[in-house]
Amino acid sequence: MSLLVTGTIGIDDIVTPTGHAEAVLGGSCMYFSAAASFFGAVRLVAVVGEDFPPAFKEVFAAFPTVDTRGLEIRKGGKTFRWGGKYLAGMNSRETLFTELGVVGEKPPVVPTVFSDSSCLFLANMPPAVQLGLLEQAPSRKLTVADTMDLWINVAKADLLVLLRRVDGLVLNYDEAELLTGCGNTVTAGRHILEMGPRFVVIKKGEHGCLLVHRDGMCALPAYPTEKVVDPTGCGDTFAGGMMGSIAAAQGAKDMGSFGSIRRALVHGTVVASFTIEAFSLDRLRTLTWAEIEARYDEYASMVRV
Amino acid sequence: MSLLVTGTIGIDDIVTPTGHAEAVLGGSCMYFSAAASFFGAVRLVAVVGEDFPPAFKEVFAAFPTVDTRGLEIRKGGKTFRWGGKYLAGMNSRETLFTELGVVGEKPPVVPTVFSDSSCLFLANMPPAVQLGLLEQAPSRKLTVADTMDLWINVAKADLLVLLRRVDGLVLNYDEAELLTGCGNTVTAGRHILEMGPRFVVIKKGEHGCLLVHRDGMCALPAYPTEKVVDPTGCGDTFAGGMMGSIAAAQGAKDMGSFGSIRRALVHGTVVASFTIEAFSLDRLRTLTWAEIEARYDEYASMVRV
Repeated sequence: MSLLVTGTIGIDDIVTPTGHAEAVLGGSCMYFSAAASFFGAVRLVAVVGEDFPPAFKEVFAAFPTVDTRGLEIRKGGKTFRWGGKYLAGMNSRETLFTELGVVGEKPPVVPTVFSDSSCLFLANMPPAVQLGLLEQAPSRKLTVADTMDLWINVAKADLLVLLRRVDGLVLNYDEAELLTGCGNTVTAGRHILEMGPRFVVIKKGEHGCLLVHRDGMCALPAYPTEKVVDPTGCGDTFAGGMMGSIAAAQGAKDMGSFGSIRRALVHGTVVASFTIEAFSLDRLRTLTWAEIEARYDEYASMVRV
Repeated sequence: MSLLVTGTIGIDDIVTPTGHAEAVLGGSCMYFSAAASFFGAVRLVAVVGEDFPPAFKEVFAAFPTVDTRGLEIRKGGKTFRWGGKYLAGMNSRETLFTELGVVGEKPPVVPTVFSDSSCLFLANMPPAVQLGLLEQAPSRKLTVADTMDLWINVAKADLLVLLRRVDGLVLNYDEAELLTGCGNTVTAGRHILEMGPRFVVIKKGEHGCLLVHRDGMCALPAYPTEKVVDPTGCGDTFAGGMMGSIAAAQGAKDMGSFGSIRRALVHGTVVASFTIEAFSLDRLRTLTWAEIEARYDEYASMVRV
């Protein structure tokens, strides 16, 4: 199945308790694509500014199955920039600055060559933009969206419209509570299903994830690790591994089934566990399929009941 | 293998966002014994006061494999009492009052008929008391202790002595950080192994648990549930299910191995998931082995990779 992702590509400044990285490649779409690329081809649709550093194109070379024909380099535009600082324990962060640049302007367009995509991931963007992009993939069989607290607070009406049109939603633990008013994660998940999607994946960071699906429920722990260098992009690579796995392994009939999503969550968990081992996409750039397989087996043996 | 537990039995007043219970049976030893009793015989060693309500003896009748010959009803003594209030979301609580009564006086004594016990669980008590009780089980093959933030703060030297003498430690997430100064749970677990035990089980409440064992590591999610009436005793029944499973299933050779603990954690997780469905021991009193098996199978299928 052909996988398409839309979202942001940006330049990040990151400060952690043990280090920092300046002007590194980031953005939801970038992390997602890199992660999904291990499972097969992934079509990227995003917009950056004219200032997008040429050196970053070398990063794309590390992920040859990412199809960048949907990457618009907008003349006169400025690339999205974000700065974040992680607090002790790496479990919370504060945003130091956000410069929307081209992300605050006209959204990217899905190229005609991508319009036959069957599997669609709408990474975190304003829900109205996500809706517009969804319309440009008329052959979609499975559509999954991410969102964030900002849109729940300022664009909830648009988000509710979007939720009626997607098959799945991926969001954080606290965002699920904000969206539904339910402190119990399972209850929050069930409420989200009533809003439209047939499944929701609730991410809990170091505590793993919960899948609430119309046909069942599944909880998985994160891969327990001591090597936490930079959590940026962890959620996006989790989603990338998950969607890459779904698109690669499943026929259209099984796609989106409880079993297919559950299997895919393990791939998401494993790929995300590598992302946090280095700043930006540094770990993913050197990651091999053999390493993914080895950690998959290790993880499987850890959770085996 | 014969399982012995020492700890507190008390009278609890509990307030939750949706209800309250007054003067109900509680205490670590009580919850532990009830949970462990589903897996086989469990020897209980605890002390209560002369005011211990006779009606509570009916509760013991619901758990016929609990051997209460080690329950001392101390003349002139007052039973331990605790009052707690759970905050919205049930993830945190405040202590309303603590009346130590007999728990603050002379500790209970292990009866001679119990001195051949091979499997020992020291539920949460002052570490010096736990050490004294440990001495009274000279045939012990596997000793596991619980502790809490209070003892880490006020009796750390005693606790460190205890840790050199036990095979395993069970404690909460935040307590592991307090004990070791490590915010990363895996790192905290490894530090605890350096203090003596060959395994540590770090409980994360609704987020499950992490086992750090000299021979491996394992993470398990909690059973995802919407029915959270009263979390009191959840950690103690988790430990009871775990130890009951170890004592019932394992020969002395395998006891305490990575594989045996991992299997036991699932039993602990499953039994704990029932405890929270009602106040006090109400749910455990009506729980059947068939219900445990059915939820075990459901849980196993949820986490299966």
